[in-house]
Amino acid sequence: MRDVALIGVGVNKWGELWEQSLRDIFVEAALKAMDDAGVDRIESLYVGCMAPGLFTGQEHLASLLADYLGQTPIPAARVESACASGGLAMRMGWMEVALGLHDIVMVSGVEKMTDVDGAGATYALATAADQEYECFNGATFPGLYAMIANAYQTKYRIPFDKFRDQLAHVAVKNHDNGLLNPHAQYHMKLTLDAVKNATMVADPLRLFDCSPITDGAAAVILAPLELARKKFRKHPPVAVIGMGAATDTIALHDRDDLTSFRSTEAAAGQAYKMAGVKPNDVDFAEVHDCFTIAEISVTEALGFFAAGKGGDAAMAGVTALDGKKPINTSGGLKSKGHPVGATGIAQIIELALQLRGEAGERQLKNPHLGLAQNMGGSGGSAIVHILKSL
Amino acid sequence: MRDVALIGVGVNKWGELWEQSLRDIFVEAALKAMDDAGVDRIESLYVGCMAPGLFTGQEHLASLLADYLGQTPIPAARVESACASGGLAMRMGWMEVALGLHDIVMVSGVEKMTDVDGAGATYALATAADQEYECFNGATFPGLYAMIANAYQTKYRIPFDKFRDQLAHVAVKNHDNGLLNPHAQYHMKLTLDAVKNATMVADPLRLFDCSPITDGAAAVILAPLELARKKFRKHPPVAVIGMGAATDTIALHDRDDLTSFRSTEAAAGQAYKMAGVKPNDVDFAEVHDCFTIAEISVTEALGFFAAGKGGDAAMAGVTALDGKKPINTSGGLKSKGHPVGATGIAQIIELALQLRGEAGERQLKNPHLGLAQNMGGSGGSAIVHILKSL
Repeated sequence: MRDVALIGVGVNKWGELWEQSLRDIFVEAALKAMDDAGVDRIESLYVGCMAPGLFTGQEHLASLLADYLGQTPIPAARVESACASGGLAMRMGWMEVALGLHDIVMVSGVEKMTDVDGAGATYALATAADQEYECFNGATFPGLYAMIANAYQTKYRIPFDKFRDQLAHVAVKNHDNGLLNPHAQYHMKLTLDAVKNATMVADPLRLFDCSPITDGAAAVILAPLELARKKFRKHPPVAVIGMGAATDTIALHDRDDLTSFRSTEAAAGQAYKMAGVKPNDVDFAEVHDCFTIAEISVTEALGFFAAGKGGDAAMAGVTALDGKKPINTSGGLKSKGHPVGATGIAQIIELALQLRGEAGERQLKNPHLGLAQNMGGSGGSAIVHILKSL
Repeated sequence: MRDVALIGVGVNKWGELWEQSLRDIFVEAALKAMDDAGVDRIESLYVGCMAPGLFTGQEHLASLLADYLGQTPIPAARVESACASGGLAMRMGWMEVALGLHDIVMVSGVEKMTDVDGAGATYALATAADQEYECFNGATFPGLYAMIANAYQTKYRIPFDKFRDQLAHVAVKNHDNGLLNPHAQYHMKLTLDAVKNATMVADPLRLFDCSPITDGAAAVILAPLELARKKFRKHPPVAVIGMGAATDTIALHDRDDLTSFRSTEAAAGQAYKMAGVKPNDVDFAEVHDCFTIAEISVTEALGFFAAGKGGDAAMAGVTALDGKKPINTSGGLKSKGHPVGATGIAQIIELALQLRGEAGERQLKNPHLGLAQNMGGSGGSAIVHILKSL
């Protein structure tokens, strides 16, 4: 099994990109990644994308994008695991390089979400839940995560006002970080009061507890570590040292406990084992804050904080940019945006930038070990990667 | 890189399965494969499926199916390459076992196509073409393949009546084979006259030149060859010795030549090289006969026949069950049915059954080397596998 390194990253400016199509934004991010790596061809392509058929009427996506990137006849594969599609693409690309099938592999993610009407986007996203048992009964994703939030507050007997404050701290912190990320969708400072008084979406989750609808793409280039050290010296080398993937029931009603994400626990356990590290060794992490409650619960599932204590950590500033365990330095899904398939790759890019010391105004001091946690639906799947500077 | 073997196969009876949902047919095929292999758990799952969001409103499919198969928290990945999604799943599962990430890996494909209205299925399938340049201008898949057929007839100056006869021979032969396959959708003997006088779909392709809309699932279990030899002795061992994957432009108007499938040529070249064999060494093949013209052109791209001579081979009986190079002994997509994501896996299953000597009434005499060619859209992607009896 060969060691795998990341040699290039590329991302476009995320947002509501009415004048760019899905293929446009993919090619923009992909060319940036190739330029960053210093390669003019790739040998294989993975594309994480959740629902291009529902959002834009286009399947057969990886071939189309290989074509528009001028790279046919290379192999190209689209992979899907709802909102964890980007992380899944990373896993597949890692496998291909580790196995030695190819050397220069592009792993990308993309989602063009604004070309459907409002009901369409909500419907498309809901297909990540159990269509027959959840959606047909009226559940939407804000509703499902609201149930998780309520179960969490009840289980850990947190007074409502305090819990509401914990959730708000996550949103404010991630928007503060997003202000320092030029590719983020929202450069908008939030106050605790603004979050707590925003329009209700699904009790207790309000507008600023939810990640937005976004058009965006992200791409990274992987190569064998040995080759990266020899040939690709433009940036400090970053190695992929840990990886894990796991599933859980799709439907919430099938779970013993709504408050912890079992798939994330299992995936993180695999990644820690492969990397030979412990949660305490991780300097910083990008986690799947599709809703504020998700970030709180996920930081517990990753072993960063004890069960029920994730919210306290957020309130105490432990997860802030200058805290002991910075979480979502990129701005997270909350402020950076959440173009579903691209999210998992953008997390990897944030790890790489921080580990290279190229994260600009949001740069951490000498981080060595970063973790990315990408999650599908309400936790039906999770992918965890651990990256290290060398 | 570990050698990979196939230790179990499972498929349901394909057809218009109004009383079974997508998850029902998947679980039926998956449990058969586990029973055939003699395992009660799997370590990882791949699902090839083209468009579950458009057909049934369900994405996040691999997690859902891992859940309904009772196998969470194993990793589960859905992969998509239009009609080559099954072949792509096989490639991914092979990679995972070859790399040593897991030992017992299920590779499956499924598509539930009849739960949408007629326009819906045609629309969903057309998303495998270039939506912005082909479909928006009215192209459908029968139309695209009709253009390929016309270009083929023109290029090789075949008199129309003879060409029409060649196409009809493919349909009649595949339906003859399908009569001997208990899992095929259509057990229906065709005559040349019936094919030639059937309802016109897109000139020159008539109803019986086209593969049908089908609900179906198929699953195989992969394991390291060494482990298979030691522990899984229920069936003669079958090894996966060659694999290739490639892309081509999605849109036909971007190709230099419509009459040959460049992605299939490239994928086959890789597979032959990896297996260390030549086209002449292949005893039989399952190829992607989504339309009769596709089988003719593909048998040329695979190197079985010279360019422009695939139709003559079909007419001369070379590709018949008792011919020198039997093609689509299963009945092919034409008669077995074409549940898009499952097709590539069903091809692999036919190879395994023939190589094990378990193909019943359609059993070939001591075949040793079989090839499966799975193709996406109008050839925008192709995956080729070569399997060998040991």
